[in-house]
Amino acid sequence: MIDYRRLRIALLGAGSVGSQVARLLLEQRTELADRAGADLELVGIAVRDVNAPRDTELPRELFTTDAAALIHGADIVIELMGGLEPARELILEAINSGADVVTGNKALLATSGPEIFEAAEQVGASVSYEAAVAGAIPIIRPLRDSLAGDRVKRIMGIVNGTTNYILDRMDTEGADFDAVLADAQRLGYAEADPTGDVEGFDAAQKAAILASLAFHTAVPLESVHREGITTVTASMIEAARHAGFVIKLLAVAERMDTDGQESISVRVYPALVPREHPLASVHGANNAVFVEAEAAGPLMFYGAGAGGVQTASAVLGDVVSAARRHIAGGVGVGESTRANLPILPIGAVTTRYQITLEVTDQPGVLATVASILSDGGVSVATVEQTVVDGAGTARIVIGTHTAREEDLSSTVQRLSASDVVRAVSSVLRVEGE
Amino acid sequence: MIDYRRLRIALLGAGSVGSQVARLLLEQRTELADRAGADLELVGIAVRDVNAPRDTELPRELFTTDAAALIHGADIVIELMGGLEPARELILEAINSGADVVTGNKALLATSGPEIFEAAEQVGASVSYEAAVAGAIPIIRPLRDSLAGDRVKRIMGIVNGTTNYILDRMDTEGADFDAVLADAQRLGYAEADPTGDVEGFDAAQKAAILASLAFHTAVPLESVHREGITTVTASMIEAARHAGFVIKLLAVAERMDTDGQESISVRVYPALVPREHPLASVHGANNAVFVEAEAAGPLMFYGAGAGGVQTASAVLGDVVSAARRHIAGGVGVGESTRANLPILPIGAVTTRYQITLEVTDQPGVLATVASILSDGGVSVATVEQTVVDGAGTARIVIGTHTAREEDLSSTVQRLSASDVVRAVSSVLRVEGE
Repeated sequence: MIDYRRLRIALLGAGSVGSQVARLLLEQRTELADRAGADLELVGIAVRDVNAPRDTELPRELFTTDAAALIHGADIVIELMGGLEPARELILEAINSGADVVTGNKALLATSGPEIFEAAEQVGASVSYEAAVAGAIPIIRPLRDSLAGDRVKRIMGIVNGTTNYILDRMDTEGADFDAVLADAQRLGYAEADPTGDVEGFDAAQKAAILASLAFHTAVPLESVHREGITTVTASMIEAARHAGFVIKLLAVAERMDTDGQESISVRVYPALVPREHPLASVHGANNAVFVEAEAAGPLMFYGAGAGGVQTASAVLGDVVSAARRHIAGGVGVGESTRANLPILPIGAVTTRYQITLEVTDQPGVLATVASILSDGGVSVATVEQTVVDGAGTARIVIGTHTAREEDLSSTVQRLSASDVVRAVSSVLRVEGE
Repeated sequence: MIDYRRLRIALLGAGSVGSQVARLLLEQRTELADRAGADLELVGIAVRDVNAPRDTELPRELFTTDAAALIHGADIVIELMGGLEPARELILEAINSGADVVTGNKALLATSGPEIFEAAEQVGASVSYEAAVAGAIPIIRPLRDSLAGDRVKRIMGIVNGTTNYILDRMDTEGADFDAVLADAQRLGYAEADPTGDVEGFDAAQKAAILASLAFHTAVPLESVHREGITTVTASMIEAARHAGFVIKLLAVAERMDTDGQESISVRVYPALVPREHPLASVHGANNAVFVEAEAAGPLMFYGAGAGGVQTASAVLGDVVSAARRHIAGGVGVGESTRANLPILPIGAVTTRYQITLEVTDQPGVLATVASILSDGGVSVATVEQTVVDGAGTARIVIGTHTAREEDLSSTVQRLSASDVVRAVSSVLRVEGE
């Protein structure tokens, strides 16, 4: 074996991803050394409880509760403990003690990313986080490096496996949200408290990270418009199918040009996606990120979005890259946020919409609905009216041309208040056409 | 504007990709500077004929025929002239004069890759080549960095747009190879001399590059088994469809374990791919690379495989990354070929096969065929016999279990020589099951 320089690796956290990272570092040490050009020595694993049960058998002597002491003297610190604190504090400590950092902490990056990247730039450390978005799928590095010479126009991502699993089963089985969620919880695809996933919080964090990278602009989590999938019903999915769409929870980050002023929009919501779009065939708990760049055209990255060992692959890729950099010398490459584009509020965003109304089935109703839309500045592209029942209810499904969200939303309010409209059944955006 | 350090960029070649790279470097200079943290100054473009017509209007004063002089003093040299010489010599010159190199020259890398990487490692220069495989699709960097901590088990790539375009149209239209090829040539999807594409030479070069990266092993072009698509007929495609497959020209690079001895196999051939496999829905001239890694599981990278501006995106990503490295200091990261796995000859490779025979329609034929197969060590998984015509010909389609290529091929010879077999219509491998 070649006598490689030894690099000290400190691991914070030994959950489902952390324990797999530790196992692979130990089991594949020789192979990883050949790849990295450095011997990666796992010097310790900081956990809250040394005696807690782990997914993998790991040497007891590696465990410690003293994260701060472990960080001291480490060349590379892997943070997989999750949560905001003490993760933030420990990462800053690692950076300031001269270590490179690898993290999978999307919540932290979406919240304190700029502070962390700033600290790293000051001392020339690198911060890598391939594991923070879309699990095993390489998407951070392609955006950061491969597309660095291109202009990203739009990203549409299925970045939350739980919600894609639920929507996919609703689509395949015609089942209702609550039933599928309960089953997903039973099977381990959804957590006991599913809020973070089904309300889009997890996807919003990832959207903020992707948008920051793609548009070289710090995107605070608060500027990400977020809607979850709890309002999606079996009949909405059925109606979407009828119209040639599938409903997906999308994280959309888009470069927009309003009157010559460039800006970006970052949003998470369930959207209608045409069945022939590559994202429509992303099934189960898989993730995919669809990127449209000015020169490169459309690209798609597809794979497992979660899972301990899958995500560990992304972490180790970052560790090996950090090790190579360590050996090669030089300082880490900072995050480029120099474009600093303004972020549009959701009201100013334009998309196509599909509006489903239950109306009284009588002459003149369509004319009334049409004039409310046109008065509101919402232009109709397609319309389909069907009789629902014998009780005088008809359904009108309206596909709009591109409309501004604030126009659309005040128009929907006026529709809702109209005498002829019994109910606004759904309002969904259309993406990927 | 920030006062960035200036880096001198020399461009060799101004074909369809080179002229787009030059245009983007000039047009987006400010934006690229913000991304790279360095001002990328295109100092010159070396071409054979300064007065030749170009795809894009570029300043005349940038052009020169003196490539060697242009290289001297450049920080980054972009080689897009293609061909083996003088590209090889100029790249070595660039490396030795202290420049980082970006190239899209797959033929050169597949032939002289080890020599070039060795020279770069000696002086600490970087050599990047995202544009060499699958055009705009980021695949080199994901394999080199993102999956650096994982073990790639298999790569299956649709890496040649021309052949995918032809096979896709044959599949959709039921047309014959010659007709579609002629049309593809008329439309610019195939060259006047299509040999490099349709005989798999181009795909073989890319397979060698992907395999070298994925398995950390220098893979000489000669060790890549190569078959083209000229023998694929409309009736083979029809039969494939009937059996639930589509025929794709695949570049396959696989890690194999024979009696505990690890080795790899690299091969290019038209193969049967199940219709539900993600690669089956890659249409037209698009490319996709499907990667199976031990920890990450299946991943797919999809996008445009060719085109001047698309490929320019990949080149510029490499240029910005090289510039960042230049600014950050440190030496380039060398290619890791330390695993150095043995490369299996095609005879030792095992896959499933589908064999189509025209036989005399008489009692005992199936028994004869079955015994030839079993004597040859080829185990039958499925068999379907149908009557072809009234002239006493029947068709037998045999799906085998996994068999060794050399066993299969000698068995097919014996089948071919048998009295009851009128013709061996096709022998196709099955991949992606």
